[in-house]
Amino acid sequence: MEKQIDRRKLVTLLGGFAGVGAAATLVAHADQTATAKAPSAALQNLPWPYKPLDPNAAAQRGFEGYYKAECMYGTFEAIVGPVAEQLGSPYKDFPFLMFKYGGGGIKGWATICGTLNGAAAAIQLLSPNPDPLVNALFEWYEREQLPDVHPKGAKFPEIRSVANSPLCHQSIASWTKVSQKHAYSPERAERCGALAGSVAKQTVILLNEQAAGKPIAFALPQATQGCMSCHEKGGAVENIRAKMNCGGCHAPMLGKHPSKS
Amino acid sequence: MEKQIDRRKLVTLLGGFAGVGAAATLVAHADQTATAKAPSAALQNLPWPYKPLDPNAAAQRGFEGYYKAECMYGTFEAIVGPVAEQLGSPYKDFPFLMFKYGGGGIKGWATICGTLNGAAAAIQLLSPNPDPLVNALFEWYEREQLPDVHPKGAKFPEIRSVANSPLCHQSIASWTKVSQKHAYSPERAERCGALAGSVAKQTVILLNEQAAGKPIAFALPQATQGCMSCHEKGGAVENIRAKMNCGGCHAPMLGKHPSKS
Repeated sequence: MEKQIDRRKLVTLLGGFAGVGAAATLVAHADQTATAKAPSAALQNLPWPYKPLDPNAAAQRGFEGYYKAECMYGTFEAIVGPVAEQLGSPYKDFPFLMFKYGGGGIKGWATICGTLNGAAAAIQLLSPNPDPLVNALFEWYEREQLPDVHPKGAKFPEIRSVANSPLCHQSIASWTKVSQKHAYSPERAERCGALAGSVAKQTVILLNEQAAGKPIAFALPQATQGCMSCHEKGGAVENIRAKMNCGGCHAPMLGKHPSKS
Repeated sequence: MEKQIDRRKLVTLLGGFAGVGAAATLVAHADQTATAKAPSAALQNLPWPYKPLDPNAAAQRGFEGYYKAECMYGTFEAIVGPVAEQLGSPYKDFPFLMFKYGGGGIKGWATICGTLNGAAAAIQLLSPNPDPLVNALFEWYEREQLPDVHPKGAKFPEIRSVANSPLCHQSIASWTKVSQKHAYSPERAERCGALAGSVAKQTVILLNEQAAGKPIAFALPQATQGCMSCHEKGGAVENIRAKMNCGGCHAPMLGKHPSKS
């Protein structure tokens, strides 16, 4: 670790030693050797400066990151890592490994898919208007056949499935049904690594589109809109705030569900 | 913002100006004026140094933070904010507002409760062994009558409910049933603010217990264990990796569920 010295205190100190003019010259020279070192306070200025990234590179990086510290880390690092590397310190010193916590829907609790949790964090950090991007990404994740990338280094055949939900256990259960593989199989682990790649890629596509001024489309599926017409804001029940697909979990209830009329 | 100058380059530079001995003396003096300034790379050393915090102060701070940037931010900042303030830069320059993304189960998608998402991130950042703390916290959240704090500044009567789930929409739906208030009411907002306080407080209690060397107890409820005996690792189905309560969403399915025998 390199020690850092406060510039203002140094000018005062050197002024006493060598005269103010010489001290200022010296410090100006030293400054030029340290122009890449921004103060750590820059981290708090959101969004961080973003320039368009390569979506396919993000896909590969997300896959590889998954094997380092799981799905949330893999996705977040694949998006924010290249930005931080471009910007240098203090950005590159962000504690990326914090996002290991989101693995398996947060420490194996199977709640939010870690790839979406990581992507949403990255979007908040990098976008001047994050909400439309998160909405578009989550809706895409629910309905797409995923993973839609087959990264370099993958050992097993590509098998895709539709999650019908942003939740980890729904996503994995759908995939095990299609693949006939178990949840703790190496095939399932590789699928979640590829999913980190897919979600990182789609997030980069959305960030690039927004940076280029393109409109970001988003609409809830019709079935979800039907549920929300009673359960969301202004509905007869209004007992939740939600956008996620209801049918993924609650479809078996629908027979017993009261009619709207 | 104060500019920082690289120490090693400065010694070389001053060596040419005033002789190596004088330069070393000067820089040693300057070092003493800058001992509190760690380089930003310190952020990556996990866990960050943790000293026990006051759980009740965390509860109040979580409540107040909720009104600044919602539930995930409120909870994370209530735990990590005081640690960062104790440690100074670069810790205090962490981009706390990134965690606004988790509000309403991530941008209103109603997935993972933002208080748990924020607490899990904080635990990963501050604990040398985060998994037992996250497990204990999530299991506590599912079964407790919450929020169990009534912060200073709260305007409405305290109403508690049991979430039976770590998910946002389950937690809110349970509370609206007990309270007979709507999901978009100011009472529900205040309840989620108090919940940020409750979860921050409980997380600090757990972090303090671990720091004191106390064992952290955790066991899945018997009903969840029953489901997992087929659906989790080594079970006949093994189609998920999960610890969350199944009955919160899937109870209506149980009548149609195949018998284990």
